[in-house]
Amino acid sequence: MMRVDFARLKRDLEELGAIGRTPEGGVSRPSWSDADMEARRWLLERIIAAGMQGRVDAAGNIFGRWQSGSPVVLVGSHIDSVPNGGMFDGALGVLTALECLRRIKEEGVGLRHPLELVAFTDEEGAFGGFFGSFAFTGVLKAGEIPDIRDSTGLRIADAMARHGMEALQAPTAFRNPKEIRAYVELHIEQGPVLEAQRIPIGVVETIVGIRRYGITFRGRADHAGTTPMEERRNALLGAADLVVKGHQMVRAEGTSASRVTVGILRVKPAVANIVPAEAFLTYELREQSAEWLRRLAEKSRALAAEVASAWGLEVSVETILDIEPVPLAEEVQAAIVAAAGELGCRSLRMPAMAGHDAQVVGRVAKAGMIFVPSRDGRSHSPLEFTADEDVERGANVLLRTLLKLAAE
Amino acid sequence: MMRVDFARLKRDLEELGAIGRTPEGGVSRPSWSDADMEARRWLLERIIAAGMQGRVDAAGNIFGRWQSGSPVVLVGSHIDSVPNGGMFDGALGVLTALECLRRIKEEGVGLRHPLELVAFTDEEGAFGGFFGSFAFTGVLKAGEIPDIRDSTGLRIADAMARHGMEALQAPTAFRNPKEIRAYVELHIEQGPVLEAQRIPIGVVETIVGIRRYGITFRGRADHAGTTPMEERRNALLGAADLVVKGHQMVRAEGTSASRVTVGILRVKPAVANIVPAEAFLTYELREQSAEWLRRLAEKSRALAAEVASAWGLEVSVETILDIEPVPLAEEVQAAIVAAAGELGCRSLRMPAMAGHDAQVVGRVAKAGMIFVPSRDGRSHSPLEFTADEDVERGANVLLRTLLKLAAE
Repeated sequence: MMRVDFARLKRDLEELGAIGRTPEGGVSRPSWSDADMEARRWLLERIIAAGMQGRVDAAGNIFGRWQSGSPVVLVGSHIDSVPNGGMFDGALGVLTALECLRRIKEEGVGLRHPLELVAFTDEEGAFGGFFGSFAFTGVLKAGEIPDIRDSTGLRIADAMARHGMEALQAPTAFRNPKEIRAYVELHIEQGPVLEAQRIPIGVVETIVGIRRYGITFRGRADHAGTTPMEERRNALLGAADLVVKGHQMVRAEGTSASRVTVGILRVKPAVANIVPAEAFLTYELREQSAEWLRRLAEKSRALAAEVASAWGLEVSVETILDIEPVPLAEEVQAAIVAAAGELGCRSLRMPAMAGHDAQVVGRVAKAGMIFVPSRDGRSHSPLEFTADEDVERGANVLLRTLLKLAAE
Repeated sequence: MMRVDFARLKRDLEELGAIGRTPEGGVSRPSWSDADMEARRWLLERIIAAGMQGRVDAAGNIFGRWQSGSPVVLVGSHIDSVPNGGMFDGALGVLTALECLRRIKEEGVGLRHPLELVAFTDEEGAFGGFFGSFAFTGVLKAGEIPDIRDSTGLRIADAMARHGMEALQAPTAFRNPKEIRAYVELHIEQGPVLEAQRIPIGVVETIVGIRRYGITFRGRADHAGTTPMEERRNALLGAADLVVKGHQMVRAEGTSASRVTVGILRVKPAVANIVPAEAFLTYELREQSAEWLRRLAEKSRALAAEVASAWGLEVSVETILDIEPVPLAEEVQAAIVAAAGELGCRSLRMPAMAGHDAQVVGRVAKAGMIFVPSRDGRSHSPLEFTADEDVERGANVLLRTLLKLAAE
């Protein structure tokens, strides 16, 4: 049975992990940064060294293949990272894909469909996220591009121009979905489930939907001494009450895949002896079921109105982000489950609770994801780690999955 | 019966209120600002025009008197303001005092004790607050002065040097408390009690104590999707729970004069899709009874520990401010009550829930405060307002109070 060359894969992981290395032992490779550019050059060299043709499309997505024709079985992930993130997130999916393609090419296996490697641009969101996969799937609109900026205000158009690329051309990276037989992405779980259950392979059923609100409670600024408690309209009391009750509501009424997170909370005027007149918070729901997401969102909005009324406040709720859950293709899931079984690996069907390029590609083509365990569920951190044996098992499951999908 | 000249008092109020006027109709006269200096010059001119001797001590406190001798009955307040504050806070106490002294001098009333007008420096806290009354009562230490700065980092020493004053000399402004027969301060209530009860005169029994804590909850930063709800250590949940439960505890177990305010709340890292690792808040208690303040502080600390434990967090509580309540002199209260009664005014004994120079002077001498109603309880705002008839009644009560205290 064909297997990946783990020593070679491990060397690749270490070499790529050294690009953008931080003093804390993490990796900083935001999209279009110097480190990202170095990683891009490194990857293209590896693709060419493997005897494949390398190509960069108008959105900066990197491809590698050695056979022409379509539809292709596309495999990959991304090589950009969050600031001071880990060396596995994204990189592992691209490098296991590279290793699988190398092995299949080396073995000279005859396949019905060509295989193609991809590393998508800006999955992590230096410029908002999914720039590459949005362009590739035809979702990116040219008119939006001039407004896409990073947190320092740098326009993606200027960032790309530094490297001789014309961002406004990115929509021409669109590929007709009919040319995609399937898309497979191996990724670290970034959560604790596989490790806790001692299962080496996760088979993603659905990529979570996200509903993110910006909620503002408005009351009245009052003197912290002279204004009696019962006469206050304290905006923070509404916000704090929603933080706790929103959490309790989702725990009591949601599913095991339901999440609610208030990551930002700001008060105004933010003076110790003035009752807050305004409190703003982000309120983010995640769910794998569109129906459940809608239900929790409705309950949350009702809760916000209820606590505002109870504390004598006004409240406004603005939708910041609205991503529907994306179910992944049953055919690809079945191929992964079968591949794991043939290798004697237990596997677990599970949702992906974070965003991935597979949710973008999955809207237009058959997509699937393989998860491997994350130690302590850590990710987006220098502590991110996946053990060698889990990397090797995951890579071999990916290899067999690709062979199945490309053969049929 | 002697009465103030209300028309003259009103002109003074309007003239002083025009100094530092803001576009919103408020007043900005932070201590040692250009507007404050203009107000100081204006007040000294008014003192001299009334036939009194004006004097500025080493802390910048302004005095006016026409008789020598001691102990004196001191009367006044402050003329500095918060940024974009109102025209009554502080100014009303100084100008009603000026008017009372003018009338008594005009009438040539023989008194056992001299009367003396005072306007203390920086009551409002541009440079931390109470600079003048701290120096006057011997609480200000020379060694602290080089570190006293405003919010822009300007040292009070440099601010005073611009006006030819040597801040390090401020402690020489100390006056032996034996030379003070009593201190009386008329002030707007800054709260809604007198207006709601339709009582024109408040007689302050105690100036509230303040215990202000900086409370930090520490948990762990986690991904808002991949980390299950039950595995999170969300610092904001502890903070939010304390905000609501602290409020409920003080409402249920405190007195009508108990206050709790969380004016500042900050989370880290403050990213919408990351569970907060840290939440800092200010937690300020106010009470007129030292015993109640201690009791509420203990319950609050226990509550912080309890919610931290319930949410799996660590918590640290740092004391930022600790001001004991200051009971005011029964003799001065009685004089105010009697004066109000003679004028046919109802009066209400009540606590002062904000800080005043009277709490500083009240630690070393017999002090009292007269409150007049604030419309809608508004203060530190351009909306601050006290009606003419309330100003006039308050001034006449102050006049009779001074006559009583100076006669005995």
